[in-house]
Amino acid sequence: MRMYDIIEKKKQGKELSKEEIEYIIREYSADKLPDYQVSALLMAIFFKGMTMDETVNLTMAMANSGDVLDLSKINGIKVDKHSTGGVGDKTSLVVAPIVASLGVPVAKMSGRGLGHTGGTIDKLESFTGFKTVISDDDFIKQVNDIKIALVGQTANLAPADKKLYALRDVTATVNQKSLIASSIMSKKIASGADKIVLDVKCGSGAFMNNYDDAYDLATIMVNIGEMVGRETIAVISDMNEPLGRYVGNALEVKEAIDVLSGKGEERLTDLCITLASNMYMMGSDTDSYDLAKEEVLRVIREGKALDKLAELVKTQGGDENQVYHPETLPKALYCMDVLAEQDGYLASCKTSEVGMTSLILGGGRETKESEIDLSVGIRIDKRLGEHVDKGERIAVLYANESEKLEDAKKRFVNAYTFSDTEVKAEPLIKKIISRKDIMA
Amino acid sequence: MRMYDIIEKKKQGKELSKEEIEYIIREYSADKLPDYQVSALLMAIFFKGMTMDETVNLTMAMANSGDVLDLSKINGIKVDKHSTGGVGDKTSLVVAPIVASLGVPVAKMSGRGLGHTGGTIDKLESFTGFKTVISDDDFIKQVNDIKIALVGQTANLAPADKKLYALRDVTATVNQKSLIASSIMSKKIASGADKIVLDVKCGSGAFMNNYDDAYDLATIMVNIGEMVGRETIAVISDMNEPLGRYVGNALEVKEAIDVLSGKGEERLTDLCITLASNMYMMGSDTDSYDLAKEEVLRVIREGKALDKLAELVKTQGGDENQVYHPETLPKALYCMDVLAEQDGYLASCKTSEVGMTSLILGGGRETKESEIDLSVGIRIDKRLGEHVDKGERIAVLYANESEKLEDAKKRFVNAYTFSDTEVKAEPLIKKIISRKDIMA
Repeated sequence: MRMYDIIEKKKQGKELSKEEIEYIIREYSADKLPDYQVSALLMAIFFKGMTMDETVNLTMAMANSGDVLDLSKINGIKVDKHSTGGVGDKTSLVVAPIVASLGVPVAKMSGRGLGHTGGTIDKLESFTGFKTVISDDDFIKQVNDIKIALVGQTANLAPADKKLYALRDVTATVNQKSLIASSIMSKKIASGADKIVLDVKCGSGAFMNNYDDAYDLATIMVNIGEMVGRETIAVISDMNEPLGRYVGNALEVKEAIDVLSGKGEERLTDLCITLASNMYMMGSDTDSYDLAKEEVLRVIREGKALDKLAELVKTQGGDENQVYHPETLPKALYCMDVLAEQDGYLASCKTSEVGMTSLILGGGRETKESEIDLSVGIRIDKRLGEHVDKGERIAVLYANESEKLEDAKKRFVNAYTFSDTEVKAEPLIKKIISRKDIMA
Repeated sequence: MRMYDIIEKKKQGKELSKEEIEYIIREYSADKLPDYQVSALLMAIFFKGMTMDETVNLTMAMANSGDVLDLSKINGIKVDKHSTGGVGDKTSLVVAPIVASLGVPVAKMSGRGLGHTGGTIDKLESFTGFKTVISDDDFIKQVNDIKIALVGQTANLAPADKKLYALRDVTATVNQKSLIASSIMSKKIASGADKIVLDVKCGSGAFMNNYDDAYDLATIMVNIGEMVGRETIAVISDMNEPLGRYVGNALEVKEAIDVLSGKGEERLTDLCITLASNMYMMGSDTDSYDLAKEEVLRVIREGKALDKLAELVKTQGGDENQVYHPETLPKALYCMDVLAEQDGYLASCKTSEVGMTSLILGGGRETKESEIDLSVGIRIDKRLGEHVDKGERIAVLYANESEKLEDAKKRFVNAYTFSDTEVKAEPLIKKIISRKDIMA
């Protein structure tokens, strides 16, 4: 088998065989294929696409390129949840305790990654003493004992995906749906999930800017799941403005506690309930969405979901009192109000710019070496479609270095446009895609 | 300027600026751009193409990446001739002496390269004592004295093209017309030609398999020439079977001598006369093709073209008697007849397979380090369209190692197909494209 012939074949739009795809991943992982041939292939894939068979074969080759977690010692159906990434997305902090409190095991290993804020693991470190490193045995024991563990990734999961992604990142070949789908699914499969709920973001703060692209990506991933025997559901949700009222780390933990306490912002709450209800349906005997949702609402109402978060924090060495007293979570020294510079309806948001604002304030990582400031971030007062008067507060910025505030404010203000006429916000949940949709 | 943005721009089908193209060539030549970004760009160019402005800017950036020969001390208009490469192509050995004998200076530097046979320089080494290395001063003096010098490439011509081509060669991005055109033209421009005659081959033994592709490539090159002030003419000629009766090195020298003696194979002779007449037109005051052709036929008839070859051989240290006694050129020890295995009309030829036959016999270079055997090769008795009887000889193979003959014969036989019904051979010269064609 020669890489040259494989590139030529894909260039001509032909389907690569399972053996060819396994060859690429095996040889590239072993540093036996030069980057320049792989990047040429990736660009050919960008233009010619991949069939579902190719996508599945790539997914499995990458999933099997490193450790594959064996969660069989955990009782019950392990349902994993993954978001394609957006600004202000703290849903994992909410849905994990909800479904765990309903008896569905949540065994989640996440990387830290780069972004506007830290990942779920970083955010949880807002709790004093919270430990993210646990041995594999303790990890499994904890999930069996209390149904939930959220830890940092220690295993070498899908290293081929990591290597391929790094190459895509510098060769303008990230935005190809089959490659994105196989990247996401390979990691979920390697981390041992039986079933998967995907939150596919769509809009100005997401990889997929428009609905059609998000729909295609979601469909590919649900298909992959089906073809490899891991039932997958994808919720396509709006990311044309940040999710919820807060962007940051400790700020998002506070907001997650709000939702678990039944007093969360409406759209964020709706999305969390939708995701949690789907996860519960997949992980339990319940096959009615309405019944599943009732259960989700019940554990929130009865405080059981919040208690589950406290139990998780305590078990992993953190101060569980902070769950009930979120005012004790890390707080920034300085804040600055952002006031509307004109009257009008909030018409559009460059959501990724709000993310950049958080990064400027210190809330995210620009490089792997960056330190995250857990306490900084943004409170957003107004949603798209709302009317604001000139001088009215639309947001608050939080920082530990006051000189960062002015820059951040400029960036934030430029993210929004105003309109004189009424503007309707996008619906939050655009579509839910499950196995029955791809069978049609 | 960031290479990432340039890749993304081309991926979206946008035109790269002169500055961007110069940046790529400058930085890549200086080893400051990684291969993997350049190969991703090349693949994007394969799919999205290049505009004429981009192609011209790439050509000039590559031409200027190394030495640019100054031939201004040579009197007259320097007309260079280039073939895109085919099997049995010995036209340079014929047309160079013809136009030199008509007073048009031929100052040709060629690389040795890889292929089914050696290059023009290799072939000339069939003459005992022929030297291909001459100092720059002597090179210029020789052209002024006798109007012709054919030497090996000593200057560092278009090194960026060399580096880029090596990358294209391993990433399946060779066959893109703008890249091919700029590669060829950059070398011609760097080697100091005032005007250029191109022989664009078309068919089963050429880069361009079909007429449309050859036409496009020819048009792009004529356009480049026009845009950089080097008048260019392209002759599109058939390469659906080897050119002439011989493939090899000394064998091709013999055949060139046949043509210069007025007794060459018809199609080969026609092409040589067409190329030489166009070169003479461009390098002289003559603007009538018919008059130019008359002059070309006259120097052949009067033996002046053949004498010019002898003068060239003598001046460069070779034995000029061999020009008049080609039977003294290197000869192989063994030969083997190839007989027709069936009756029928010769219907088609995989010409590149005939080239491979020559390579197997030892006539070409597989790697830069390979030694060429000047004496081996193929005599082809039958042209496409001719009828042959079973058992009739269709070719003779020449080798110095008898064990190579059987393999070579198999390869050769498999190159041809037979037909029961009459087959018409392709016309030799399909089109001549000059500045007036691209103005239309």
